[in-house]
Amino acid sequence: MEICAVGGYSEVGKNFTAIKVGDEVVICDMGIFLPPLINYQGEDTELRGLSSDQLIKIGAVADDTIIAEWKPKVRAIVLSHAHLDHIGAVQFLAAKYRCPVYGTPFTIELLKSLLADEKVRLPNEFKVLNPNSTAKISNTLKLELLGITHSTLQASLIVLHTKEGVVIYANDFKLDNHPVLGKKPNYERMRQLGKDGVKCLICESLYASVDVKTPSEKVARELLKDVMLTVDTKDRAIFVTTFASHIARIASVVDFAKKLGRKVIILGRSMNKYLGAANKIGLVPFFKDVKICSYQGEVRKALKELSQNRGKYVVVCTGSQGEPHSILDRIAEGDLKFSFLEGDVIVFSCKTIPQPMNIANRKVLEDKLRRMKARLFIDIHVSGHAGREDLRDFIAMLKPKHLIPAHGESQMESALADLGVEMGYIVGESVHQMKDGQRLKIE
Amino acid sequence: MEICAVGGYSEVGKNFTAIKVGDEVVICDMGIFLPPLINYQGEDTELRGLSSDQLIKIGAVADDTIIAEWKPKVRAIVLSHAHLDHIGAVQFLAAKYRCPVYGTPFTIELLKSLLADEKVRLPNEFKVLNPNSTAKISNTLKLELLGITHSTLQASLIVLHTKEGVVIYANDFKLDNHPVLGKKPNYERMRQLGKDGVKCLICESLYASVDVKTPSEKVARELLKDVMLTVDTKDRAIFVTTFASHIARIASVVDFAKKLGRKVIILGRSMNKYLGAANKIGLVPFFKDVKICSYQGEVRKALKELSQNRGKYVVVCTGSQGEPHSILDRIAEGDLKFSFLEGDVIVFSCKTIPQPMNIANRKVLEDKLRRMKARLFIDIHVSGHAGREDLRDFIAMLKPKHLIPAHGESQMESALADLGVEMGYIVGESVHQMKDGQRLKIE
Amino acid sequence: MEICAVGGYSEVGKNFTAIKVGDEVVICDMGIFLPPLINYQGEDTELRGLSSDQLIKIGAVADDTIIAEWKPKVRAIVLSHAHLDHIGAVQFLAAKYRCPVYGTPFTIELLKSLLADEKVRLPNEFKVLNPNSTAKISNTLKLELLGITHSTLQASLIVLHTKEGVVIYANDFKLDNHPVLGKKPNYERMRQLGKDGVKCLICESLYASVDVKTPSEKVARELLKDVMLTVDTKDRAIFVTTFASHIARIASVVDFAKKLGRKVIILGRSMNKYLGAANKIGLVPFFKDVKICSYQGEVRKALKELSQNRGKYVVVCTGSQGEPHSILDRIAEGDLKFSFLEGDVIVFSCKTIPQPMNIANRKVLEDKLRRMKARLFIDIHVSGHAGREDLRDFIAMLKPKHLIPAHGESQMESALADLGVEMGYIVGESVHQMKDGQRLKIE
Amino acid sequence: MEICAVGGYSEVGKNFTAIKVGDEVVICDMGIFLPPLINYQGEDTELRGLSSDQLIKIGAVADDTIIAEWKPKVRAIVLSHAHLDHIGAVQFLAAKYRCPVYGTPFTIELLKSLLADEKVRLPNEFKVLNPNSTAKISNTLKLELLGITHSTLQASLIVLHTKEGVVIYANDFKLDNHPVLGKKPNYERMRQLGKDGVKCLICESLYASVDVKTPSEKVARELLKDVMLTVDTKDRAIFVTTFASHIARIASVVDFAKKLGRKVIILGRSMNKYLGAANKIGLVPFFKDVKICSYQGEVRKALKELSQNRGKYVVVCTGSQGEPHSILDRIAEGDLKFSFLEGDVIVFSCKTIPQPMNIANRKVLEDKLRRMKARLFIDIHVSGHAGREDLRDFIAMLKPKHLIPAHGESQMESALADLGVEMGYIVGESVHQMKDGQRLKIE
Repeated sequence: MEICAVGGYSEVGKNFTAIKVGDEVVICDMGIFLPPLINYQGEDTELRGLSSDQLIKIGAVADDTIIAEWKPKVRAIVLSHAHLDHIGAVQFLAAKYRCPVYGTPFTIELLKSLLADEKVRLPNEFKVLNPNSTAKISNTLKLELLGITHSTLQASLIVLHTKEGVVIYANDFKLDNHPVLGKKPNYERMRQLGKDGVKCLICESLYASVDVKTPSEKVARELLKDVMLTVDTKDRAIFVTTFASHIARIASVVDFAKKLGRKVIILGRSMNKYLGAANKIGLVPFFKDVKICSYQGEVRKALKELSQNRGKYVVVCTGSQGEPHSILDRIAEGDLKFSFLEGDVIVFSCKTIPQPMNIANRKVLEDKLRRMKARLFIDIHVSGHAGREDLRDFIAMLKPKHLIPAHGESQMESALADLGVEMGYIVGESVHQMKDGQRLKIE
Repeated sequence: MEICAVGGYSEVGKNFTAIKVGDEVVICDMGIFLPPLINYQGEDTELRGLSSDQLIKIGAVADDTIIAEWKPKVRAIVLSHAHLDHIGAVQFLAAKYRCPVYGTPFTIELLKSLLADEKVRLPNEFKVLNPNSTAKISNTLKLELLGITHSTLQASLIVLHTKEGVVIYANDFKLDNHPVLGKKPNYERMRQLGKDGVKCLICESLYASVDVKTPSEKVARELLKDVMLTVDTKDRAIFVTTFASHIARIASVVDFAKKLGRKVIILGRSMNKYLGAANKIGLVPFFKDVKICSYQGEVRKALKELSQNRGKYVVVCTGSQGEPHSILDRIAEGDLKFSFLEGDVIVFSCKTIPQPMNIANRKVLEDKLRRMKARLFIDIHVSGHAGREDLRDFIAMLKPKHLIPAHGESQMESALADLGVEMGYIVGESVHQMKDGQRLKIE
Repeated sequence: MEICAVGGYSEVGKNFTAIKVGDEVVICDMGIFLPPLINYQGEDTELRGLSSDQLIKIGAVADDTIIAEWKPKVRAIVLSHAHLDHIGAVQFLAAKYRCPVYGTPFTIELLKSLLADEKVRLPNEFKVLNPNSTAKISNTLKLELLGITHSTLQASLIVLHTKEGVVIYANDFKLDNHPVLGKKPNYERMRQLGKDGVKCLICESLYASVDVKTPSEKVARELLKDVMLTVDTKDRAIFVTTFASHIARIASVVDFAKKLGRKVIILGRSMNKYLGAANKIGLVPFFKDVKICSYQGEVRKALKELSQNRGKYVVVCTGSQGEPHSILDRIAEGDLKFSFLEGDVIVFSCKTIPQPMNIANRKVLEDKLRRMKARLFIDIHVSGHAGREDLRDFIAMLKPKHLIPAHGESQMESALADLGVEMGYIVGESVHQMKDGQRLKIE
Repeated sequence: MEICAVGGYSEVGKNFTAIKVGDEVVICDMGIFLPPLINYQGEDTELRGLSSDQLIKIGAVADDTIIAEWKPKVRAIVLSHAHLDHIGAVQFLAAKYRCPVYGTPFTIELLKSLLADEKVRLPNEFKVLNPNSTAKISNTLKLELLGITHSTLQASLIVLHTKEGVVIYANDFKLDNHPVLGKKPNYERMRQLGKDGVKCLICESLYASVDVKTPSEKVARELLKDVMLTVDTKDRAIFVTTFASHIARIASVVDFAKKLGRKVIILGRSMNKYLGAANKIGLVPFFKDVKICSYQGEVRKALKELSQNRGKYVVVCTGSQGEPHSILDRIAEGDLKFSFLEGDVIVFSCKTIPQPMNIANRKVLEDKLRRMKARLFIDIHVSGHAGREDLRDFIAMLKPKHLIPAHGESQMESALADLGVEMGYIVGESVHQMKDGQRLKIE
């Protein structure tokens, strides 16, 4: 068995792992890495016509030329979940491989929506697999998508049953015992896999150095509730901005808006994209209760109505990272003919992704909003990624023979390797820290 | 009216404010500032026989010589709550003033315990005032202690009714609508005070720059619950360390220990001090359910029993800041003949106070604990201090004519002053940023 | 005497101080604060047609409406030196005041160049004063511009001789005993002023918390020399980017280029502006040795020549802060048909100004340059601002009765106030920390 | 050829690399890692009787049990230079190996001094090799110690000539073209080695992520000169604290003291140790001009004399990291009956090593010194370690087939690996990032 760390092993983004067993290769995830694109783009999904070669060159997409000789052997591209750092490069790279693309219903639906937006047609077949079900990739390869909690819907652990043993690809996940939407993790199946024997675990390491068990989404819900229901917002506008993919968070906003007797308006193209995809497969119980405005005209109209009845609505919108051209930014710039007034509430139900440009954009946006005398509530959020103590429990359940830290910069992967050593793994023998472009043979 | 910022206006600590109205002076708080003591002391309440002059010189105690000419006019020392940065200098400074010391039952009880420990006898009379009651200080001065939520019991806003108007001293507080022990804030009384007219508000500014509403203690309880009840701790030791003064937090630990069917052992001298004081006045409903060990012998005995039955107990102990000679530190150093084993759980239900020595001590302690393979869970905590949006609501309720940021370093007080300006106050006219040693006349 | 902190007392930028003595007012500096403009502008001097009211509203220009009633009393606007945070708002605000604008030759020349670029015509008369000379403002006001070392040419301390005593405005300066261009500080005159008596010193506080004596420009020259002369640059391009206003730094680059037998090309509009202004008054000894290219066509032509003879030139250009549309950024974006090759050297002879957007822009630029395999040398720089120990010496020489920290955020001014207290000043009596908009009466 | 990363590959400290060629093993360096000792010790060389097993367990000494089976094959222990993180574990580990210890005269002299202090007698033979000379280790192994610039004397690159090619161990070094003591790097020999072929380079990575060429010691000398010669120190005490091993820095202090007409007193045991060792082999040209006081009595006497004639001396002493019980700390604590007075100058000619405890200790010390009103000058220093651009030149000269980043935490080694990739190396093939305990086979 040979594993190639194509992308996501030297940065948080452009995840792409290739697993070769015998003469067959499976690719797990094809993501993008946004920071190199930052000067080329307005919104997070526009890529301004750069070619895949250019995207590879600037580091936005994993350099899959390093597995060029494996190309004819690739049997499947499997997508773990619907975040762009896991599926955003499918449109640029998938056509090179003559194989189907597998994913859960939401992941595939969202992918289709992205492709439609970019007017990309791929030759690959899409194969939809429900969480906690299996599919035969070839005579010797069986795929299992094991549902897991994360900050979007239908995230899955990719469990690959091969003739050389089971490989588990665990990017990204948390162990949330009280999720707001979806089920809690299937610990029983994990323990069973551990008992039956796992050859190799490729595991996210984003927070491997942080001594926590990541709090449940229930806690974010409590934080949100406290702000929305106990702050005096009478006749004030309430805006909540979060990641468009975080449907569970939006569900909580909708619930508390109801308690306030307010209607929910959702603004922004990416909001529309994620909610639309989720709704198509029946995952948005609150869909009929909200109004989604995507196009400029709709947005302006909704904001005009809001300005006349600030106390009747809760707005959910884009802008959580201060992105130029997001809804919040355009309001702050005066482009949408709506202005915040003293006492209006803006909830940032997110963290700022720790890239300098995000930090700067958020600062610029917050400064503008403060000048309008809006009230800001930041960090109403919990992470969707496992902390060190979740990772410990996770590894203890799966008992893999080999552990490969993934989804992180060097020091994060090093921290997960250290955790492995704490648990009895041996560096270079059973725990393997890799960088983008590196290969590892496991006999 | 003249206000002297004696201490706590240039640092977070040694709070001491003197308010002169006509010919009468009231002192609010007499706290200590721990960092300058860091090299002189083992535990947080030992002061190794330094004189008050020496303590003033090294900056550990506010320099009250600057109000020497007011000394004969002081009518009362009023203590806001039982934290050392508010009451820790009473033993050094109070005897200079011929007046009583006022506080809520818990504050006075804890103060007495401190004095007894240090074998200090003060000439001042102690006057106990229940939260939400009033006392006559002189013919022209009335004191009201208005109960408020904070991270210890019976914290109060000091409301001083004078012939020149009402002065409110608001150090420290949060606005917690779901406290675990005690009542939520008395918003009605605050609004009434605002309506009747408040001349001056002296207000904490610790988190004035942070755009949040501070989460309720209920959230810390949820975080604690998740760790204590969902992590696999079978036959493992569970230790929780927190601030000894945080009785509500300890109450949550006791509750979850019960759910686990475990008994609670509480270790450490300061734990004994705070719980003992609180229990004397009936504020520790769980007192009979826990065993408190203060002396070396008791501690060793309890740890010996624990080592034989790790799964039967939850330990609450000192060491949350990594303090040398705290219980956790002494275990880590091997001084207490108890050793952590792989899988034992240590919950830091606190934040690290952002002083370099605390950060270093915590790092040293955590490194030792990790080497023993204990599992650490950090930051299981919410703050006891108001965020910017709490402060906004608070000021809006009280509508003071003058606002004086307190309890902070320069940039914190500056942030509260900026909030004041956002709300219509004018710098140098109605909002006044002060430094230690400065006086302000309000006509 | 009354002093109004109009701008620059709550941020590093938009410096503007008004000093009223009797019935006459003098304004020191009229600067801009760039961060609020960050989303509106390409280069650092474009302001895209915002009105002065809009600029005040977004915080880019000091709010001088707070001294509206002093308007008819203003007798002079005095500019300390040619940086935009000191003169950049003249074009928006000066016309309101019926009085002349004073400055050293370079400052006035640069100002004229700015105004010409923006096509602004001001009614105010410009009065040029050589460093270390005096002028009569009115019968009771005498102005002295005392030359001082800083990171641009002909910076001056503004010494105002009034009937109520001498006021000194010291923004910005360092005490450099080995400047590369210009003279070292006139310590004798300072000591004489101190002996004769200084009523009030308004003093920069940017690095008041940093325990240093700021290194001499000679040290930056050594650092630059080491990189330019000892790194192997045969046949490689050498680019140096620095602040356009830093003529002395550019002089060092020219010297070392000569040693390398290379010609110097200077690219960028702001480079042209500063060097042109300095040259007009004979302050650029190396002017005939360099070629300055300002317009697009010239720049492209020069870069084309360079690409054919990389080893013959040293380029000095804009982009030290990673500014979008600077020369370096446009090269990195591929807009100028010049590409860096492996081994080319780019020297950042500057610091990154610690604003989030600058940090992010620099990161984005550096990442692009690294992808082109250029070699980066960063922080080849020393500051132009006084450290704490310079400030101590400075205050000790001038012995002012009153000290007002300026040019800084709250914690910087607080640090200077603390230094004052160390030196015997008393908070609120002889050292006065102010915020924008605040007034102070000195009797 | 097989290389084992025994220590120093997961932290900055406890350097220990084992190189096996055929049936012979050479060990490069045996250092200690101080942070785990921080609670056990007063000064930096005391280890309070911990056994080597205990030291390994707490992580202070590299775990060489992982090469237990290589023990009989070890032919030499070679020490690169005289810093404790490279030689400090010799006393605990060397006796296990039946082989000589090689080093330059200063390194061996200092080692002997350490051993004498600790009363340790080792069975190993000491073999002294001058910089830039060679020795035969066995019939198939030749050792060359190639002199290199660093922050102590006689640092060397360890060049191992084996039958499988040349291995170079390059911990620690800078490329300083203007060293104050010693010669500049022997670039010619390096280029020759590169031409002849280098199989493997083990290279420090401490500053591999920092885009600089590390400034020459000449720059530190300039900084020191500026402070010592231009600040007004008449009748004031002048103290300079630096690393005891930094003889060149001390030489600069002595030079400037002479210019001031002052005598130099050197205080502290570690100062005595390093200077004594260096002097024994004739490397301290200024030895006769200084007075070194090591024992308590001498120190007190010297300080007493100083207190009566502050203007006649310059003191060099320990305490640069704020270490408890260092000379500066003991003065600050009042233990040495000498007190700083207002205007006394204390120069920290060092950086603070970025460990939390060092940061905290320095803060505590600085606070105490400031309270005494001494003037502090910090960061009068340049590093002794190569920056990214030095490393690039270094690798380009040596052209190794394999590159192994060493002497760093994970992200530092990752940065050097990235530099390798920039230069054409391939991850996992020709550049190899390792962690403590890992082995690598190179065929």
